Amino acid sequence: MLSYDLDSYDGPLYEKIYKSIKDDVYAGRIHPGEKLPSKRKLAATLGVSVITVENAYGQLQAEGYVHSYQKRGYFIAELPGIATGYRRIKSEATREEYNQKRATDKPVDLSNTQANPKLFPFALWARLMREVISEREDEIMDKSPCNGVYPLRNAITGLLATYRQMQVEPERIVVGSGSESIYGILVQLLGRDKVYGVENPGYRKLSEIYRFHGVATRFIGLDESGLSLSELMASNAQIAHISPTHHFPTGATTPIARRYELLGWSAARSDRHIIEDDYDSEFRFTGRPIPSMQSVDATGKVIYLNTFSQTISPTIRVGYVVLPSELHERYTRDLSFYSNPVSNFIQLTLAEFIARGHFDRLINRSRLYYERARRRALDAIQSSSLASRCEIFENDSGLHFLLRLKTRRSEESLAQRFEDSNVRLDSLSKYYHDDRSSNAKLYLFSYSNLEGVQLDRALETIAKTL
Amino acid sequence: MLSYDLDSYDGPLYEKIYKSIKDDVYAGRIHPGEKLPSKRKLAATLGVSVITVENAYGQLQAEGYVHSYQKRGYFIAELPGIATGYRRIKSEATREEYNQKRATDKPVDLSNTQANPKLFPFALWARLMREVISEREDEIMDKSPCNGVYPLRNAITGLLATYRQMQVEPERIVVGSGSESIYGILVQLLGRDKVYGVENPGYRKLSEIYRFHGVATRFIGLDESGLSLSELMASNAQIAHISPTHHFPTGATTPIARRYELLGWSAARSDRHIIEDDYDSEFRFTGRPIPSMQSVDATGKVIYLNTFSQTISPTIRVGYVVLPSELHERYTRDLSFYSNPVSNFIQLTLAEFIARGHFDRLINRSRLYYERARRRALDAIQSSSLASRCEIFENDSGLHFLLRLKTRRSEESLAQRFEDSNVRLDSLSKYYHDDRSSNAKLYLFSYSNLEGVQLDRALETIAKTL
Repeated sequence: MLSYDLDSYDGPLYEKIYKSIKDDVYAGRIHPGEKLPSKRKLAATLGVSVITVENAYGQLQAEGYVHSYQKRGYFIAELPGIATGYRRIKSEATREEYNQKRATDKPVDLSNTQANPKLFPFALWARLMREVISEREDEIMDKSPCNGVYPLRNAITGLLATYRQMQVEPERIVVGSGSESIYGILVQLLGRDKVYGVENPGYRKLSEIYRFHGVATRFIGLDESGLSLSELMASNAQIAHISPTHHFPTGATTPIARRYELLGWSAARSDRHIIEDDYDSEFRFTGRPIPSMQSVDATGKVIYLNTFSQTISPTIRVGYVVLPSELHERYTRDLSFYSNPVSNFIQLTLAEFIARGHFDRLINRSRLYYERARRRALDAIQSSSLASRCEIFENDSGLHFLLRLKTRRSEESLAQRFEDSNVRLDSLSKYYHDDRSSNAKLYLFSYSNLEGVQLDRALETIAKTL
Repeated sequence: MLSYDLDSYDGPLYEKIYKSIKDDVYAGRIHPGEKLPSKRKLAATLGVSVITVENAYGQLQAEGYVHSYQKRGYFIAELPGIATGYRRIKSEATREEYNQKRATDKPVDLSNTQANPKLFPFALWARLMREVISEREDEIMDKSPCNGVYPLRNAITGLLATYRQMQVEPERIVVGSGSESIYGILVQLLGRDKVYGVENPGYRKLSEIYRFHGVATRFIGLDESGLSLSELMASNAQIAHISPTHHFPTGATTPIARRYELLGWSAARSDRHIIEDDYDSEFRFTGRPIPSMQSVDATGKVIYLNTFSQTISPTIRVGYVVLPSELHERYTRDLSFYSNPVSNFIQLTLAEFIARGHFDRLINRSRLYYERARRRALDAIQSSSLASRCEIFENDSGLHFLLRLKTRRSEESLAQRFEDSNVRLDSLSKYYHDDRSSNAKLYLFSYSNLEGVQLDRALETIAKTL
């Protein structure tokens, strides 16, 4: 009879069961042709639901580890070439030893600039969602307007006023399922015949998405003030997609003078627009952020874009855009036949989350957490053997900084060495849309998801690699 | 002090308050310049939350009925040209009289082919969602694979086996937020350089979406067996987007012979594909549905598409597609950088809903409901004065049939008369993507959302109009 210590595994419950059984197969504890317990029986033994076991068996079946025969049950498949005993976890190892080993083995990913999922107030969100479900059936069953339900758009205007001093009417806001669905809407709104300029280096996924939407893109280089105006002028781009508050991944902030220059560029021709991607402006640690370009735009050329993936969690899948007047009219005329892609369950819960002040509290807590994590990382580097062999570029905000490694090795040789190590470090070169690589030996150092032991290990490894 | 009987109004709570106050403005019960009670005060009086009042005030403000002055509160705006007393509901009318009047005045929409929201088992869905939130935090916080979480894709394979005798591996399924987001993915997958053929008449939104995705479309006419093969051949379309099980809006089912002919068409050239839109195949009332084209496709040319909007509710916003092997590989290679647009909260709840058999029960209940509604509509027509002046086209499935009106009036003259009446009736002509209008005086007659009193009224009005 199968009986597992599911705590030894990561991931959702069904995956733990799936992994346990797979490990048993590899360890030779169960053999080809052997019958698995019925779903009901295993569920009872493990104290989980039948559907969880069903999902685990389904995954095993999908991957060919088991076969199912109607009315006879599930059987381990013949698996030629599998050496039993492989991947076996010694039974004499205590769970603690095992877990410690896992923590040490786990690769350290310094390129992960995602929000730390530990900060998401899951219990609170769950409570609000339960409340919304219980009390607002009518609103949930109502068809959402194409641009999102009013309470959410209204709550967002509150955030924009608080965090960005922006006065925005709720009808100008279009809610989408994460920024990706919004890029798609913007392409349809601005036109597929336009040429889109993106920052180089920048967010790689962005140019991928534009490419798959079949629009022409230009990669515009940066200078010390942000997007290079001369390169932008020289290109025939009509849309400039930029992140002036906190450029990804260099962290640079575009000063106000360049912002006005860019506004001037957009004002000069009627077909020009700026997409202001303000993705993590909330995480500025010192002082007030520079006003958004949208808030100083008198010509209706700036489209303001933001997402809750960095501030709340990517799991809720919500982003939004603020459209200038003329584009808002075009949107209403041409694109309002679309259904809003975000379920009302999520939209209304998020509206409550913001309206009751939980967003503000989360931002404050997150800022504190990331600021400490940044401090810890900077201190650790300072007091490590790496101190004299690197230089740090940062601007007091965001979830990462840049590390320049001082070494004679080429980026290629370093990449090779990192690949063999347990540390994932992405060179800035990876963020160029073209092959304008830098060999500047600048690396992203994200501290948002780093634990203490990982930090030390990462620094050690990097120092050795040089 | 404002004190309202909110039950007199439809819609979400904040909207009821918003409407109450607006009615007061029009009725002259509150005057320009008058101060509204504070949000907190009104919330207490009405026994609602402050945020609800905030949303109501926000909507009033957005529409210009009230102004807010910082720290002073909300004031009724000057509204030139408003005759007070207008729209006033007489206070002596009892609520019952009022509601009855509303039901009688409410326009009857015979073109609404949406699922009836009353059938959605809200309480059950709410319970499952609460359970998922409480018990599966890890899974919710895990990043969903680009094509959706495994338990949902696995549950969908079960549905496909049950309802469509399709044997599909979970990895071939891509979950999206309603069919609209899936059309977008398909354009990116099949290529923007392809020519897309859509049924004419057909689903108008579809050609709109293709148009806004910047792809060339061809409108392919129908004959008695479905999509006209000769028109398809004569066009240079490479992708045929069709609904062979139950064509929208004619209700026609494509017989097996034409299906093979279409498969033959697609097999003849490597760049051809068929998108099989199976949107309401579950609602067949008699006999088993004809096998899906996907299930008899040996050449990997058919993309199967379905949605839960018709079967469960559009509010959950989930659809999916089954990709043939080669396209699945292309999807994994090229498009798996996308995030899945559906929140894990929804994906996991839906997986449970299906896995525990609730989907099956809902379909059975819905079938029964729609079959009765159809029967009732057909009987009512038969025993009305309309009986001798119309003809009915239907094929025992779906949520509507077609009504041909026998009259000498032109469609234009009828349209004029319907516009002045309280019945919304859409001519089939409206479903042509081009101006190939028919003047066949064929009208959609949807019974999915019709109540008894509305049915009689609609038939009376139509008879009078002839």
